[in-house]
Amino acid sequence: MPTTKLPVGVIGLGRMGRIYADAIAHRIPNARLVAIADVVQGVVQEQAELLEVPFATTDYRELLARPEVEAVFVISPTSTHREVVTEAARAGKAIFCEKPIALTLAETDAIAGALEQAGVFFQAGFMRRFDAGYAQAWAKIEAGVIGRPTTFKSIGRDPFCPNPAFADPAVSGGLILDMAIHDFDLARWLMQDEVKRVYAEGSLMACPELKAVGDIDNAVVTLAFEGGAVGDVEVSRNAFYGYDIRTEVLGTEGALQIGYFRQTPVLTLTREGVAYDMVPYIIERFLDAYVAQSQDFVKRVLAGDAPAVTIEDARRALAIGAAATQSLHEGRPITLEL
Amino acid sequence: MPTTKLPVGVIGLGRMGRIYADAIAHRIPNARLVAIADVVQGVVQEQAELLEVPFATTDYRELLARPEVEAVFVISPTSTHREVVTEAARAGKAIFCEKPIALTLAETDAIAGALEQAGVFFQAGFMRRFDAGYAQAWAKIEAGVIGRPTTFKSIGRDPFCPNPAFADPAVSGGLILDMAIHDFDLARWLMQDEVKRVYAEGSLMACPELKAVGDIDNAVVTLAFEGGAVGDVEVSRNAFYGYDIRTEVLGTEGALQIGYFRQTPVLTLTREGVAYDMVPYIIERFLDAYVAQSQDFVKRVLAGDAPAVTIEDARRALAIGAAATQSLHEGRPITLEL
Amino acid sequence: MPTTKLPVGVIGLGRMGRIYADAIAHRIPNARLVAIADVVQGVVQEQAELLEVPFATTDYRELLARPEVEAVFVISPTSTHREVVTEAARAGKAIFCEKPIALTLAETDAIAGALEQAGVFFQAGFMRRFDAGYAQAWAKIEAGVIGRPTTFKSIGRDPFCPNPAFADPAVSGGLILDMAIHDFDLARWLMQDEVKRVYAEGSLMACPELKAVGDIDNAVVTLAFEGGAVGDVEVSRNAFYGYDIRTEVLGTEGALQIGYFRQTPVLTLTREGVAYDMVPYIIERFLDAYVAQSQDFVKRVLAGDAPAVTIEDARRALAIGAAATQSLHEGRPITLEL
Amino acid sequence: MPTTKLPVGVIGLGRMGRIYADAIAHRIPNARLVAIADVVQGVVQEQAELLEVPFATTDYRELLARPEVEAVFVISPTSTHREVVTEAARAGKAIFCEKPIALTLAETDAIAGALEQAGVFFQAGFMRRFDAGYAQAWAKIEAGVIGRPTTFKSIGRDPFCPNPAFADPAVSGGLILDMAIHDFDLARWLMQDEVKRVYAEGSLMACPELKAVGDIDNAVVTLAFEGGAVGDVEVSRNAFYGYDIRTEVLGTEGALQIGYFRQTPVLTLTREGVAYDMVPYIIERFLDAYVAQSQDFVKRVLAGDAPAVTIEDARRALAIGAAATQSLHEGRPITLEL
Repeated sequence: MPTTKLPVGVIGLGRMGRIYADAIAHRIPNARLVAIADVVQGVVQEQAELLEVPFATTDYRELLARPEVEAVFVISPTSTHREVVTEAARAGKAIFCEKPIALTLAETDAIAGALEQAGVFFQAGFMRRFDAGYAQAWAKIEAGVIGRPTTFKSIGRDPFCPNPAFADPAVSGGLILDMAIHDFDLARWLMQDEVKRVYAEGSLMACPELKAVGDIDNAVVTLAFEGGAVGDVEVSRNAFYGYDIRTEVLGTEGALQIGYFRQTPVLTLTREGVAYDMVPYIIERFLDAYVAQSQDFVKRVLAGDAPAVTIEDARRALAIGAAATQSLHEGRPITLEL
Repeated sequence: MPTTKLPVGVIGLGRMGRIYADAIAHRIPNARLVAIADVVQGVVQEQAELLEVPFATTDYRELLARPEVEAVFVISPTSTHREVVTEAARAGKAIFCEKPIALTLAETDAIAGALEQAGVFFQAGFMRRFDAGYAQAWAKIEAGVIGRPTTFKSIGRDPFCPNPAFADPAVSGGLILDMAIHDFDLARWLMQDEVKRVYAEGSLMACPELKAVGDIDNAVVTLAFEGGAVGDVEVSRNAFYGYDIRTEVLGTEGALQIGYFRQTPVLTLTREGVAYDMVPYIIERFLDAYVAQSQDFVKRVLAGDAPAVTIEDARRALAIGAAATQSLHEGRPITLEL
Repeated sequence: MPTTKLPVGVIGLGRMGRIYADAIAHRIPNARLVAIADVVQGVVQEQAELLEVPFATTDYRELLARPEVEAVFVISPTSTHREVVTEAARAGKAIFCEKPIALTLAETDAIAGALEQAGVFFQAGFMRRFDAGYAQAWAKIEAGVIGRPTTFKSIGRDPFCPNPAFADPAVSGGLILDMAIHDFDLARWLMQDEVKRVYAEGSLMACPELKAVGDIDNAVVTLAFEGGAVGDVEVSRNAFYGYDIRTEVLGTEGALQIGYFRQTPVLTLTREGVAYDMVPYIIERFLDAYVAQSQDFVKRVLAGDAPAVTIEDARRALAIGAAATQSLHEGRPITLEL
Repeated sequence: MPTTKLPVGVIGLGRMGRIYADAIAHRIPNARLVAIADVVQGVVQEQAELLEVPFATTDYRELLARPEVEAVFVISPTSTHREVVTEAARAGKAIFCEKPIALTLAETDAIAGALEQAGVFFQAGFMRRFDAGYAQAWAKIEAGVIGRPTTFKSIGRDPFCPNPAFADPAVSGGLILDMAIHDFDLARWLMQDEVKRVYAEGSLMACPELKAVGDIDNAVVTLAFEGGAVGDVEVSRNAFYGYDIRTEVLGTEGALQIGYFRQTPVLTLTREGVAYDMVPYIIERFLDAYVAQSQDFVKRVLAGDAPAVTIEDARRALAIGAAATQSLHEGRPITLEL
């Protein structure tokens, strides 16, 4: 049924962009990858051949000018989001934008304004919501399995120190915004409540090279929710053993734990003990979630449904991250203005 | 690099055939799905549109006649394998054939003869060898992690009683051949040894409807290997809790356990205890292995490498299953002629 | 309430005897250790002081002659059981006897005869029945949680090659009788059925020093039950990674798995992967079961209840083991005379 | 060797006192329970008979006056600790005192003064340090397995709402002091560092009856350590699924996770999924640790070694708890004066 296939363009073909492009080209039955854009000529050419895309360009504006492109995935660097999304909105495209939408509330508001003016469909990327584990947890909370949530906990640990150039807070927003924004979005989504106050502590002990750019490698953040619940979020760069993503919600009738460790279903038993391997990194953990997220966007655009994750959702997660970062710098709890 | 894409035809579009066709169309970068065939006109049409295949037919011979088809996946019913594989061999195609190749050694030998005469590439389907867990286990055994293997154990449990029409031994070969053939192949592959003697016990207690066709629902089989090792294999239809596939190899320096239970990474903790969900069935468990198996076939055909699983491998697994079935009927251990 | 304390004597103070003596002296509120006996003078003296036992002797007959001793634990070598139990029965003592009661059915029958004549309370030792895991599994089966049992599986693996002097089949009964007798007792108890036919395969690959005494180090045994169910039991000496005891019962409505691996509740995560330690050996795994078993005996004697494990239970587990050993030697299935 | 048995008196025979008394009477080879005291006459009498203790009294001063009593376990209510410990110190006894030593730093200092003046051996109770899991984790950190610790995390969840009378902050110190003091001790011990700053958030959502006494039922506390590391501690009353005690330490080379869920080694698999039971409460989880802690005290007193946990350790854990409680009340981070 070719008439129901959404013609999609992908802007930005870095590591994540190629994953989205591949998913749209091959994994999503009701989408068709019709155009790609990236500033690097070689990447554009290679991907165009590999994915057999009819239109490929180094100028995303050309992609936006194509009438057959009905929806775009904006996977370009965060610093370009405002411009690209604004242009895409003007061009009347349905828009998916990878997280983070922006590093400041002001920029987010500017994007929100452009979207509102254009009246286009916009969905923000928070792929964890589309992970089978997180989705099942949300459904169980919704179904009342754990009663009223009282406590939120989330851990996000990367398996290596980042390149200081990318960790530079001017580029990444700093450790908390860069990593914990996923956890802050989960906090809102799973607790079905808003965060009203945060307090953060941080340290730099494992990645000394980050000192030059003024970033830290470990942080803990406490959360107080509007409805009375509490929580804590921990992010770290030094889980050198693997990619460690876990969330818990405790409620008045039970608890849920989301996440897993073992990557390959093999247990090795020797005189040294019992051992197994660990999830290596984000793609091994969340590839299916990225595909499901893309599929969800396509389905909603085709059906005319509301977006699963709005610009306001993105704004609020950012607001929590910004407040936590402020708390870290000022050494005091920060109350959010909602 | 379009020149390196292997043009593939798929014959047989039942549940498994559609999975292979989808994998070839979308998941395998160096293959191209150019033709499909199935006896059911509606299925052919639907899949041709869905997968955008240029050539589709209800007569597999037409597919074999297409010169652009260089390789075929034979996923049609077992009873058709001999004819289809023989014709494909005559047509000079590289052939992948889903398990079981045949239900008797005589038929397998006939197929082997046709293949030899034609001199075509042939790979038999045993997808578990391409599962990340089984593959890692094999590599660890190869690397000597557990020393010399002394004991092989395998469990294969289906989550439901089959339709008696399909479980009819005339169609399926009977419970042991139908289910344990995977375990017998693993036994040879992981132990790097041949089975020399088998003994089987069976029972019918959970699926009384199988009595009419003369099949059983549970069996245990002991194995004695040429090199001295021992083993046992258990297959069952009544794992109504889920699809339970597990293998262990014990050696002189350690042991390996392959398999897993939890499907979704969520633990639910309530007053009733701790709970999680179970792997539902074969596609949830082995989809990635099917894709990897197809990818492996394509890669070998393109590279001119030897097949990963030969007709002789298929024959030997079948021989073990046939001997175990004979043991069940005759109530005595059966020694295999190798 | 001193009047309810059962005055107990322990005969045999080897490794297991000392564990029973300590349990009676300290862990069982309604028992009192009043006498001990062992052929080794030094051990008797040491334990008498350590446990503060009023009467200690190197001649168990002196212990049996003490009128204050109401019950005895016979933990002496298997070869002495017949004599000691017979004497204890004549002396009118309530008797607990550690497994195996005897290595032959003839000797078991002789003991049974002596017990019957004396009319004393006798309980055989099969401590796994008193393990919290096995006990909970039994209760769940009894409650119908898994429906009607269709398949029994049990694994018993020791973490080292035994001293050939102890593994000598003349002393131990051979690998199957020495190790699998626990599993055969569990088979009868958990399946609530009798084994009617067995078939065994064995090998010697990991402990070559056992060749001199004619024993093997690995065996697999299939079971066919009176009521139609099937099963398999595996025992091994070369689980050098730890003490690996596991049992499964599959039924028409579900399955139970009993056993565990991790000894200490610590998970270590490093670049090498995730690791934990393994259960070292029998005392770490079953100490609580030994205490519970002793407690159960004492309670039953005091209350005048029937024994939890009878001489007939011991005889039937032995009969399965003897048949499996015969099968191993004769290369054919053996049907049990019940 | 009776001369090496330490003669011990136990003061306070509530639930915990009876556990200590039983451990000393039966589980610790080099201790002898020679005297017990409790204000309730019936309890004293019952325990004296049950444990066969030669001296029993309702006036602990009489116990302290007995010259044969060389060491005392003070397990009486926290509010009596100052008086009892001071008297015991004056009487020259070696003293073990259950946590919390006191609810205020002033009272702790008074006790410390009395101890110093008397020059007696004093060990504070923090049984988790003697749990096999926590002890192994400490040893691994000490051995450098995880490099330099960067992040401490601990969860302590009780399976029920407490009786408001006991949760009254005037009696318990409030939720954080009552529950998290264990985690604060672990923080100092495992991180081998001092906490310098804390921030707490709390809530009351699951146990509304605590409102009357002014307590909360959930709290999260962030920790900043002197050496730069960070951490968070969470305590809750509403883990109605079971007793949930877990700790993690992340370091520059790896991580450790301490704790476990499943109580009985049985997995139940049905159409409803996979399920197991949960640790019910503190005695099931930590009985062995209480015994090991008592054994350690006895061994140190007999050997003339320094205490494992000093009054200063108790004081510092209390100081963290008091600061966290202050943070909760004042809504700001509190810096500890060390």
